[in-house]
Amino acid sequence: MSLFTDFYELTMCASYFDNKNFEPATFDLFIRRLPENRSYFLFAGLEQALQYLQSIKFTEEHLAYLKNQGFNQDFLDYLRGFRFTGDVCAVPEGTVTFPNEPLIRVTSPIIEAQLVETFLLNTVNLQTMIATKASRVVHAAKGKTVIEFGLRREQGIDAGMKVARSSYIAGCQGTSNVLAGQVYGIPVFGTMAHSFIMSYPKEIDAFRAFAKTFPNKSTLLIDTYDDISGAEKAAVVAKELEAKGFRLGGVRLDSGDLAQTSKKVRKILDDQGLNYAKIFASGDLDEFKIAELLSNGAQINAFGVGTKMGTSADRPYLDVIYKLCETMTADGSFSPIMKLSKDKITLPGRKQVYRFKNAKGNFEKDIIALANEKVQGEPLLVKVMEKGKLIYNLPSLEEIRAAAAENLSKLPEDYKALTGAPVYPVELSKNLQNLIKTLKRQLTLNEINHGVSNTQA
Amino acid sequence: MSLFTDFYELTMCASYFDNKNFEPATFDLFIRRLPENRSYFLFAGLEQALQYLQSIKFTEEHLAYLKNQGFNQDFLDYLRGFRFTGDVCAVPEGTVTFPNEPLIRVTSPIIEAQLVETFLLNTVNLQTMIATKASRVVHAAKGKTVIEFGLRREQGIDAGMKVARSSYIAGCQGTSNVLAGQVYGIPVFGTMAHSFIMSYPKEIDAFRAFAKTFPNKSTLLIDTYDDISGAEKAAVVAKELEAKGFRLGGVRLDSGDLAQTSKKVRKILDDQGLNYAKIFASGDLDEFKIAELLSNGAQINAFGVGTKMGTSADRPYLDVIYKLCETMTADGSFSPIMKLSKDKITLPGRKQVYRFKNAKGNFEKDIIALANEKVQGEPLLVKVMEKGKLIYNLPSLEEIRAAAAENLSKLPEDYKALTGAPVYPVELSKNLQNLIKTLKRQLTLNEINHGVSNTQA
Repeated sequence: MSLFTDFYELTMCASYFDNKNFEPATFDLFIRRLPENRSYFLFAGLEQALQYLQSIKFTEEHLAYLKNQGFNQDFLDYLRGFRFTGDVCAVPEGTVTFPNEPLIRVTSPIIEAQLVETFLLNTVNLQTMIATKASRVVHAAKGKTVIEFGLRREQGIDAGMKVARSSYIAGCQGTSNVLAGQVYGIPVFGTMAHSFIMSYPKEIDAFRAFAKTFPNKSTLLIDTYDDISGAEKAAVVAKELEAKGFRLGGVRLDSGDLAQTSKKVRKILDDQGLNYAKIFASGDLDEFKIAELLSNGAQINAFGVGTKMGTSADRPYLDVIYKLCETMTADGSFSPIMKLSKDKITLPGRKQVYRFKNAKGNFEKDIIALANEKVQGEPLLVKVMEKGKLIYNLPSLEEIRAAAAENLSKLPEDYKALTGAPVYPVELSKNLQNLIKTLKRQLTLNEINHGVSNTQA
Repeated sequence: MSLFTDFYELTMCASYFDNKNFEPATFDLFIRRLPENRSYFLFAGLEQALQYLQSIKFTEEHLAYLKNQGFNQDFLDYLRGFRFTGDVCAVPEGTVTFPNEPLIRVTSPIIEAQLVETFLLNTVNLQTMIATKASRVVHAAKGKTVIEFGLRREQGIDAGMKVARSSYIAGCQGTSNVLAGQVYGIPVFGTMAHSFIMSYPKEIDAFRAFAKTFPNKSTLLIDTYDDISGAEKAAVVAKELEAKGFRLGGVRLDSGDLAQTSKKVRKILDDQGLNYAKIFASGDLDEFKIAELLSNGAQINAFGVGTKMGTSADRPYLDVIYKLCETMTADGSFSPIMKLSKDKITLPGRKQVYRFKNAKGNFEKDIIALANEKVQGEPLLVKVMEKGKLIYNLPSLEEIRAAAAENLSKLPEDYKALTGAPVYPVELSKNLQNLIKTLKRQLTLNEINHGVSNTQA
């Protein structure tokens, strides 16, 4: 994956190399702001980021391609021996976080820290975005099962895999993606498609054929022609299964007014003594639709949620960025760095995030402080790599999922409102505020007022 | 990639196998409707679909996993020998298409056709969505260069690759993604990041360091502190380069009022005789923003377009579906199939799409007809696989890009309006209309009016 990077990372690195700049620097990966209808982030993607940092290197094939792109031999020789040798602190996956909080902090020779930017952003963007979205869907489902069903319209192969992973972290109970089941050990689920029904002359023949193959776990799709008569036929097949000592799993609705239909279908099943048969709903679902269905008394046991969760359709990206926050100066000490573009101020210096909790462990506020400050509260960033070596026990997916559940349970209910949630308080420590003031003054003097003539001096 | 599929594809296939249903069937892959602010699709993703169909098979590792999921040994033995043996017709990549038009038509034993559904949808969804979006961006840029810059926020690794590919097909001139450059031969571009500027004590030192490394192709990012003084410093460095016989490539603006700033920057550069230095703009761009900039007289030579194009942010998925349209009946003839769920009617039978052009070759209308009908117009679907073998010369990426340019040039200008475009006429042939009427009547009689009692007969 070493060429999975923006070209400018390589041109900048070539210039650092050319200008003999091998000094260490620190970069923060963070998310600038909350999208509309998001009130927190559920952080995910660290495992893949760390795998990448441990394995990045350039093959001869890569170097030959870069030579063709005009990079000089000295730099290519440097890349041939390239390994990531830096220190990394990060927030564990499954942590609830907020804007401007460093999620991954990289300290290494500036060439290395620069070169890894694109991959880190790409994997954190996708997984944190989906984990966040999926946590909202799970919250809206109020304890009912949510299965991730979006593979066919997720944005490519890797998205298909990472959406399954991050939505499982967020509390989904499984995925339709079989490969994600195999690779990550996530439970896989599936029912049947309309094509299966339509391939038989009669709907009930399709039901019977499927029930023959899966006598104890069939979920029959009942809306191909008409959901009510579909439910009646499913009940017939369920009774046939009962006669053989089996039990129908349930039925699936994929269209129409799911709240009203599910009530009618529930009655049809219950009237036949099929109280155990579950009603599974799918079709264009997201957190808003699920909340509406439940508030309308939908009789639904499980939701299959696809495209809108799997692409985070209402906001398919995060404002995740990776910014230089300190460089080493000539005297060997680190010097804080800040960006001052309009509306794009960054937080200078090496930082830590502290979380404050009440007696019950519920989150009250966070403080972003300088790393060397003494601050109350629980530090969120932990050291995960030292000199390029992993010094962190990567938690299992189940452990990450449990951490996410614990984090979400400690986030007060208000902040989980689907719309109009209040802003969680994230403060800057006094020292960090003072540093920002000082740097603003310096930058203004150096670069803005004096302009070209002075900067040439 | 054989497990990169929805679990229900496998359960349905297991049931087809169990019920000894190996008869051929035909499925259409098509897009149900146009998203808001889209008036056509630019089809892409066929090459990856065909690679998949040629290579799909199950390893012992896959089979062991599926055994654990409860599939029986007979079916697993069948999967061990699984190969795709069907016929495939498809629209060539780079073709402009419209809703309901079959894009890929698969005829094979129903198990095979069913099993490949998820991957085909996944790859066509992503690439057609991005090619379509990118074609709008390129159109809005009115001949100015557009570079795809979204890698960091595209949805995962595969999306990063396929977005570069499909936006290049659509007319972008290159990508920032170096791996896409290597794999697909797409030109790669990049400038520098704010971090590069900030890592130097003075902005002009950063400019000089970069210009030293790339004396003839530096594009200097001038908005880290203040874009006007940044432009003045870039001009100083450009004159220093001239003195050594080199030429500055240009400058990049990444924030602020790009239209106004670009005019001021142009003047600063021109006043120094730097008319050759290009102005490159980036930052939250899409087709609407580019159109607005150009209508405000922005002096911009090239656009770097990232997240909003790379995720199709205003509509990050297509309503792409894959539907059964015919099965083989007991007498060995094919019988057309239609779905009748509310608002989700599908077109029955094996079909072809015919395009009608005027004397200049401009597109006038399409007719979707039955494959065995005689219809005027140019057929869009070509046979690409026969009995599982590729019988199609896969065009090169440059050829696909040329086909896209040709297609887009023949689509009348009206249909390319960014908003409010008219609906391109897509008609159904008389025979197809009659078939739909007949099937509707049959289905209604069979399944709806008579309900359970009759269907058990």
